[in-house]
Amino acid sequence: MAEFEVRFDSHPEPIRVPAGTLLVEAARQVGIEIQQPCGGQGRCGRCAVRVESGQVRRRSVLRLSKSDLEAGYALACQTVVEGDAAIVVPPPEAIQRRLTTDHLAPEATVPEGYDAARAQSIRRVAIRLTPPSMDDQTDDWSRLCTALRRETGLERLNPSLDQIRQLGSTLRSSDWRVALTLDTGRDGTARLVRVQPADEAADAPLCGLAIDIGTTTVTVWLVDLLTGRVMRQAGEYNRQIARGEDVISRIIYASKGDGGAELREMVLGTINGLIEAVCKRTKITTGDIVKATVTGNSTMMHLLLGIPAESIRLEPFITPINRLPQLSAIDVGFAMNPAGIVDPLPGVASYVGADITAGVLASELRSSAKLTLFIDVGTNGEIVLGSSEWLVSCACSAGPAFEGAGVVHGMRADTGAIEEVWIDGRTYEPSCRVIGNVAPRGICGSGLISLVAEMFLTGLLDKGGHINQTLATPRVRQGLHGAEYVVAWAAESEGEEDIVIARVDIDNLLRAKAAIYAGFNVLADSVGVPLETAEQVLIGGSFGKYINVEKAVDIGLLPDMPWDRFHFLGNTSVRGAYLALIDSAARDEIDEIASAMTYIELSADNSFYEAFTSALFLPHTDLSRFPSVEAAMT
Amino acid sequence: MAEFEVRFDSHPEPIRVPAGTLLVEAARQVGIEIQQPCGGQGRCGRCAVRVESGQVRRRSVLRLSKSDLEAGYALACQTVVEGDAAIVVPPPEAIQRRLTTDHLAPEATVPEGYDAARAQSIRRVAIRLTPPSMDDQTDDWSRLCTALRRETGLERLNPSLDQIRQLGSTLRSSDWRVALTLDTGRDGTARLVRVQPADEAADAPLCGLAIDIGTTTVTVWLVDLLTGRVMRQAGEYNRQIARGEDVISRIIYASKGDGGAELREMVLGTINGLIEAVCKRTKITTGDIVKATVTGNSTMMHLLLGIPAESIRLEPFITPINRLPQLSAIDVGFAMNPAGIVDPLPGVASYVGADITAGVLASELRSSAKLTLFIDVGTNGEIVLGSSEWLVSCACSAGPAFEGAGVVHGMRADTGAIEEVWIDGRTYEPSCRVIGNVAPRGICGSGLISLVAEMFLTGLLDKGGHINQTLATPRVRQGLHGAEYVVAWAAESEGEEDIVIARVDIDNLLRAKAAIYAGFNVLADSVGVPLETAEQVLIGGSFGKYINVEKAVDIGLLPDMPWDRFHFLGNTSVRGAYLALIDSAARDEIDEIASAMTYIELSADNSFYEAFTSALFLPHTDLSRFPSVEAAMT
Repeated sequence: MAEFEVRFDSHPEPIRVPAGTLLVEAARQVGIEIQQPCGGQGRCGRCAVRVESGQVRRRSVLRLSKSDLEAGYALACQTVVEGDAAIVVPPPEAIQRRLTTDHLAPEATVPEGYDAARAQSIRRVAIRLTPPSMDDQTDDWSRLCTALRRETGLERLNPSLDQIRQLGSTLRSSDWRVALTLDTGRDGTARLVRVQPADEAADAPLCGLAIDIGTTTVTVWLVDLLTGRVMRQAGEYNRQIARGEDVISRIIYASKGDGGAELREMVLGTINGLIEAVCKRTKITTGDIVKATVTGNSTMMHLLLGIPAESIRLEPFITPINRLPQLSAIDVGFAMNPAGIVDPLPGVASYVGADITAGVLASELRSSAKLTLFIDVGTNGEIVLGSSEWLVSCACSAGPAFEGAGVVHGMRADTGAIEEVWIDGRTYEPSCRVIGNVAPRGICGSGLISLVAEMFLTGLLDKGGHINQTLATPRVRQGLHGAEYVVAWAAESEGEEDIVIARVDIDNLLRAKAAIYAGFNVLADSVGVPLETAEQVLIGGSFGKYINVEKAVDIGLLPDMPWDRFHFLGNTSVRGAYLALIDSAARDEIDEIASAMTYIELSADNSFYEAFTSALFLPHTDLSRFPSVEAAMT
Repeated sequence: MAEFEVRFDSHPEPIRVPAGTLLVEAARQVGIEIQQPCGGQGRCGRCAVRVESGQVRRRSVLRLSKSDLEAGYALACQTVVEGDAAIVVPPPEAIQRRLTTDHLAPEATVPEGYDAARAQSIRRVAIRLTPPSMDDQTDDWSRLCTALRRETGLERLNPSLDQIRQLGSTLRSSDWRVALTLDTGRDGTARLVRVQPADEAADAPLCGLAIDIGTTTVTVWLVDLLTGRVMRQAGEYNRQIARGEDVISRIIYASKGDGGAELREMVLGTINGLIEAVCKRTKITTGDIVKATVTGNSTMMHLLLGIPAESIRLEPFITPINRLPQLSAIDVGFAMNPAGIVDPLPGVASYVGADITAGVLASELRSSAKLTLFIDVGTNGEIVLGSSEWLVSCACSAGPAFEGAGVVHGMRADTGAIEEVWIDGRTYEPSCRVIGNVAPRGICGSGLISLVAEMFLTGLLDKGGHINQTLATPRVRQGLHGAEYVVAWAAESEGEEDIVIARVDIDNLLRAKAAIYAGFNVLADSVGVPLETAEQVLIGGSFGKYINVEKAVDIGLLPDMPWDRFHFLGNTSVRGAYLALIDSAARDEIDEIASAMTYIELSADNSFYEAFTSALFLPHTDLSRFPSVEAAMT
């Protein structure tokens, strides 16, 4: 096959590749990683590079404007080499590695009345063995089991091969005084995690991890298992973002070639980096971490464990496994004691995963007789309606609009993101609050909600989401994608362009909010209760951290209720993993939650489509559902 | 540190090594493997090389004669480089890789009345699943478990991560019709071994392995689990022989540097070579082998699994573990289905291993009320006395004399070995039977027994084992090691030397036979029965394959009893592993045997030393114990 020479501006040497090689592939071969937020599907346009010279074939030019093409731009994930070429790779959009380890989240508190001795399944038992002699030649393992039985009554323990290999020298070097770390599992059997000299164990910490793998952000809590206290927490963007911003993009990327292995390495890299960070700050060694609970949506869980996730994406949307068995740290690849236990929490369906079962646990929804709505809008939107008696759930394919994706000037809630907007009703001039108090770079989810609500309430948008082009303001104008509103002029912002919101962005947002609101309705209808009878709305996830309820009600995303019914719980997913880590009864309860939860597949539900269509307006076709908005409009 | 140049005659390039490097190490670096039958202790003398020129330091010259030293010989395992040197490595003693796969041993028969459907713990179940749909979004794993429960009533199954990873594609590619291979374990739970498309499984074999790891020989039986039939067997020398002929040498070798890993690789190489050989002959693929039972002495079992064995050798002689858990083939390293089950059979003590518990099972000793003596003299000598009611056992540190080691012209029972000797009582001229009918190279164990018995009965030896030097025969003469008897002249033999037996060899043999006979006595005394009341003597192991009972009684190795009480059972160790493989009740019985067996440590037993001393004579101090020999002497 013909080979051609491709030269990248940021690399000194050209590379020879066969005809037909994708530009992303050629770049990777010289060590240049081009971000592919949509997973290489040519949908997002963020992998655009400039072809300075040479011959390439663009299989798709979606997301590239005419002027982009004239300037030589091409999508690196969709463009193949057909001759020698010189390529300019624009500087990557920085994914700020905002590794935070300083402050504990408010939800990182030990539950009231918690008693580790009673609740914790992990325990460390010090044992003194009678040394062997010519009169007592019992083998090392039986000797240990006998002493353990005498000390604890435990009948049976299965060692791993590695533990057997190390046993003899540990027993002898410790002068036959050892400490065993055991996990008395959910099925009543005990699992041996560690054998160490008793002297060494006396002062040693005994730690666990609660790990939440978000599509966007990974969070790790380091927990002292002896007290239940959260010692440290850390969070960082999931490195997989560079290969797709939403779960669908990642599944597609994972199903191509070694994509699955690559994504697995990426998320392990993120997690292990966080583990090392919390260990460093607390002076804990990874060997002292003996257990981890893991939560995340079903796709994240499958990608972590290298389980093919393709069937999650394809109708009829099936997960390979919702309830994973306990695994060993060495098999999963976590930077902790290799014999440590990794306990993946159970999910319910392809789009209602362990993050939701853990979230429901953390929300304490089950301990209340109140009719409760629980929502977790992260990169996906999942909703649970229920009480101590029953639970129904659904997932809305809202898309990542609320995380800034699918919106031209959208961005994640990072430094430079506009997070709140107020618009003057007479001049139509906006005031913005920007994360980090810097010049704005784009608009994040809460900023978008705020912006659309303000535009609606000031008449810049009509009920259908159309921009009113008759108003006397230079901020409304005709753009590349139709009518648009300028939120920040180029001169005020960090980039070279005006930051705008266009008709197409508003449509995306309307679809996202309509999907969620329709989800509420379908759940309520499925159990025959009016949505408005919900006595509380519990909001988990990163979304809830920044959102302004009033604005969310204004656009018809949240139901119109007295504000005191809304409660923001922070990261309920990691909190649930934490509770399962420190309390075996809580762990059992997550299993019960997963069993009790009825999942409603919206895409198979005709009433969803009707509800969705009705909710595509601001705030809704049926204004009587939003009395407070109606009042504000007049 | 100073470096010197060492040149080996069989390698084109010299090598530079630091001062102090052992010659065996330097040789290994250029790919020359020098055999070290004693494990590098300088005891056996078989690693001797000739130092043609240069400067070396001999840390030990044991086993080298004055003339050897004058000719420049040095023990490669005990000699270090102290200057440039040129070394001649004599051609290695061929360890004939007598891989035998042609004939089934007589003991390779299916037990009478065997019913695989009832006895076999492995089964394959074909299952048809209802495909998922939008109305039934159950995850793949739950779907499988539900169908399995409906089909078999099995409640719970834990998959491995690899099985989960492969499940989705197997289900879909097989159109939701699969066959599960399950092992309904000893504790009542089921273990998933394999999921394959039902069509593929319909005609596929379902195989297991019975593996016996002898110190000298490894034996593998390939078994059809659907019928219990032995399809093929193969045996070969354990490749570890090159690093030590007896278990003590191997333990010492394993405890140095990477010796343990090296020995593990060697025995895995032997076993996997045998597995491939039996598979090739039967056209079975290794993926169809789903279970293996493994037996061997405690040292072999520990070395196979990479468990440090040092404590077996050192007082008070403790094994790290006698009862190993079931393991996965992938963890053990066997060339079979990676998810297949490896079941290491239980041992009793450091020197009474799984080979003996399996042997006792195979001997059917437990199903008889007769007082029975079971002996397995391989590289070690283990003895069991008992009946259906009770079992006592001991191990005699007989040393490998009966396998030809520790005897100057001793060799294994291989082509060229003298295996039987008759001596003319008037001329003292011997007639020999040689394995393979070739010119003799040495004398194997049965040949030695035969030779000593004949020498004793013809007056060439007295009761104390001294060679009678007053007889008129040129075959008795003064040799390097004192008086000796020439069994074969150099002209008749394959080598350049006369094949002789010397006083020192006879002493070794007397010690070996005395240890075993004393073992019999101690066992009988321990339970208060006279040895002579044993109603049968069951002989297992390679030793029993060639031995002549009459000769063994003549030298006082076996007790003097009517010959019809002796039964040769062949390789009882592999037979026991085979029975455990095909019958879960037999597998349970091995556990019961291991529990029931009382182990008597001879080195802590004063009566053993007395019995040993009394047995150091031909046939014994107390001639009344050997009436048939007494009769033959007169």
